[in-house]
Amino acid sequence: MAPEARTGTPVTNASRDAFAAVQLEIGGAGAPTVAALALRRPFEPSSHGLDPSFRLTRFSDLKGRGCKVPQEVLGRLLDGLTADEAASADHDPLFHVAIPRHGKWIGMDAAITPLRAAGLSLVQTTDFIYPLVDDPYMMGKIACANVLSDLYALGVTDCDNMLMLLAVSTKMTERERDVVTPMIMRGFKDSAMEAGTMVSGGQTVVNPWCTIGGVATTVAQPTEYIIPDNAVVGDVLVLTKPLGTQVAVNAHQWLDIVERWNRIKLVVSEDDVRKAYQRAMDSMSRLNRVAARLMHKYNAHGATDVTGFGLLGHAQTLAKHQKNEVSFVIHNLPVISKMAAVAKACGNMFQLLQGHSAETSGGLLICLPREQAAAYCKDIEKQEGYQAWIIGIVEKGMRTARIIDKPRVIEVPAKEKDGELW
Amino acid sequence: MAPEARTGTPVTNASRDAFAAVQLEIGGAGAPTVAALALRRPFEPSSHGLDPSFRLTRFSDLKGRGCKVPQEVLGRLLDGLTADEAASADHDPLFHVAIPRHGKWIGMDAAITPLRAAGLSLVQTTDFIYPLVDDPYMMGKIACANVLSDLYALGVTDCDNMLMLLAVSTKMTERERDVVTPMIMRGFKDSAMEAGTMVSGGQTVVNPWCTIGGVATTVAQPTEYIIPDNAVVGDVLVLTKPLGTQVAVNAHQWLDIVERWNRIKLVVSEDDVRKAYQRAMDSMSRLNRVAARLMHKYNAHGATDVTGFGLLGHAQTLAKHQKNEVSFVIHNLPVISKMAAVAKACGNMFQLLQGHSAETSGGLLICLPREQAAAYCKDIEKQEGYQAWIIGIVEKGMRTARIIDKPRVIEVPAKEKDGELW
Repeated sequence: MAPEARTGTPVTNASRDAFAAVQLEIGGAGAPTVAALALRRPFEPSSHGLDPSFRLTRFSDLKGRGCKVPQEVLGRLLDGLTADEAASADHDPLFHVAIPRHGKWIGMDAAITPLRAAGLSLVQTTDFIYPLVDDPYMMGKIACANVLSDLYALGVTDCDNMLMLLAVSTKMTERERDVVTPMIMRGFKDSAMEAGTMVSGGQTVVNPWCTIGGVATTVAQPTEYIIPDNAVVGDVLVLTKPLGTQVAVNAHQWLDIVERWNRIKLVVSEDDVRKAYQRAMDSMSRLNRVAARLMHKYNAHGATDVTGFGLLGHAQTLAKHQKNEVSFVIHNLPVISKMAAVAKACGNMFQLLQGHSAETSGGLLICLPREQAAAYCKDIEKQEGYQAWIIGIVEKGMRTARIIDKPRVIEVPAKEKDGELW
Repeated sequence: MAPEARTGTPVTNASRDAFAAVQLEIGGAGAPTVAALALRRPFEPSSHGLDPSFRLTRFSDLKGRGCKVPQEVLGRLLDGLTADEAASADHDPLFHVAIPRHGKWIGMDAAITPLRAAGLSLVQTTDFIYPLVDDPYMMGKIACANVLSDLYALGVTDCDNMLMLLAVSTKMTERERDVVTPMIMRGFKDSAMEAGTMVSGGQTVVNPWCTIGGVATTVAQPTEYIIPDNAVVGDVLVLTKPLGTQVAVNAHQWLDIVERWNRIKLVVSEDDVRKAYQRAMDSMSRLNRVAARLMHKYNAHGATDVTGFGLLGHAQTLAKHQKNEVSFVIHNLPVISKMAAVAKACGNMFQLLQGHSAETSGGLLICLPREQAAAYCKDIEKQEGYQAWIIGIVEKGMRTARIIDKPRVIEVPAKEKDGELW
């Protein structure tokens, strides 16, 4: 299997058993090489002995943002919980965000807890999501990248330990479960390896909906993390991944649903949608690790990662936590090619250009000194081959964030990697 | 509200709003005092404006053991995942257990990961469960005690950080959700406080089934944990909580189901079942922290906590990890009063006396030097007012565990606390 996987020879032997197909799908038994990943074939249910109509995304009724309890509901529920805390005035309505407590900085993405060992802190985050792409291996990678992203947002580049949290759907057949689960686990694990960490444990349960997530933990010196509260007037805002993952994922599902497809087919071709979907998968499974490392090199004043509450939601939370009286103004929206048009064709559904469209494993939104931002963008492109964009500025204000009336949409093309496969 | 809660005055004002009732239920707005907890009234849905028929346990189709992927299935799924690991021969079929890796001890209950900071290790565990009692506050406490128990099994007594993982059921009405969620959170948080730690963050999502769990993390010196692989011939086995929580929880639900109740009513009275249920809740919400602390004082050779795979399942896993050629033989089964009879009346359903009945937040099963075991049991009873039992011995053998043919069943009565309330 392994040589085939490495050279990308198509599988022609129809009698090959499903397990061998899994091995091929995941790029052979060893650590994935860049070539193996680039040559990965898309997931085809039938090549694993599953019905061609099998879709992983069918095992949850919610995707992306939908899986979170709405912000305002959570705020209300937490009000009761935190009412007796002295620090309650500071508390953030996101429970994903740390609950405030004395002697502890309130993390926006990960919690930072001082340890008994002098000078060290525990930096920790957890996240889990429902399937939003149909390729189980990619879903595992995306889930892992999504968990790690909370550490990277704090400039932490090394994860000391990863736990995996997996819920297998009760609605899958045994065959489906036995094919899909190892592929999800493998994707998750490969992503952890790519990040220089390993999955040491976790929990696997059965549940009506399939869910995948984890817990990322680091014990860090103060120099290893950047507390995201230090933006100053004159900084600029950099975003490291394009927006529109949720739109792309939905548009791709609508290829199978005539009435939904009819709604958008005037603005987008099937090929556009497939390319956008590939770009979204590529983007969501990409680690924000280099982005985090370069935050130190270019003296970032703070960052957050863009996920379920959209660009503006996360920008507002970041603004709210600043020490200085600053506000964020966003002028440019880099969006996966054609997805702005799809979002517009869907009316108010996504609110992409308003900054509310959910992203999964989105980019870092970073406050950088103006004179460093261009070099930051150039460096990340040189190292990873992906663009980053200056999307806004930090001005004097009351710790809020907004997008200007007619932001400039930057069309971000699907990345061409080795021709047809991406 | 607070004074009433402290004195336990019954609530007679029917017009009291539900929020106030919540405050009373959870022992007032401040930290719970021992008195407030002892005087806690049972959860009554109608006193919170909910339908009297509301049952938290209805929001999941599975309870206890059922929520875990069966041991043999998980083993198969993980075979693929670990096939390429050099250490695969050592791997444990429980994914709840750490996946083996080089340079890292394979934890049975929590993962232990050496850190970059010299001499320190990360001790970490995660667990989540579906509701198995109908009192949301108690459910939160039980879930937290259940997570912490994995640390305590390693003799770790201090948890540095706790994350809470909560899934709110999509099937709850808004009203039900708004009443129940803060109570679960409060129970979880109070239990964390009792353990000397705090909930710093987590994740809240919606899901068809309600689930509650968390992640417990400690950064520890080698002297703070006891690697559970050092049992020697002549040791004895101590168990710190009675068995039968799953039986008690089920029997209690059968009070509402005539055909099930008919099956057991010859061996048990309604009052017996209610008392057993209270004892089970009390036991499941009790921390194994003192048990862990005393492991150091009495030179324990290793321990595990008894949860979803039952006493024998966990004893076998512990035996398998021993350095020495030893086996465990169990002679005595302390069981919540009358629950052995209930289990027998249900045929093979629970397999309680065979050691397979699932426990939630069960006791520690500890290998202790023979001459220290009695003192250990005496000390824990003195400190906590709860009995522990010597239930078996460590003899020469091939790292297995068994229960003798006719084990002695020790009937453990419901704890009488302040008369009627417990």
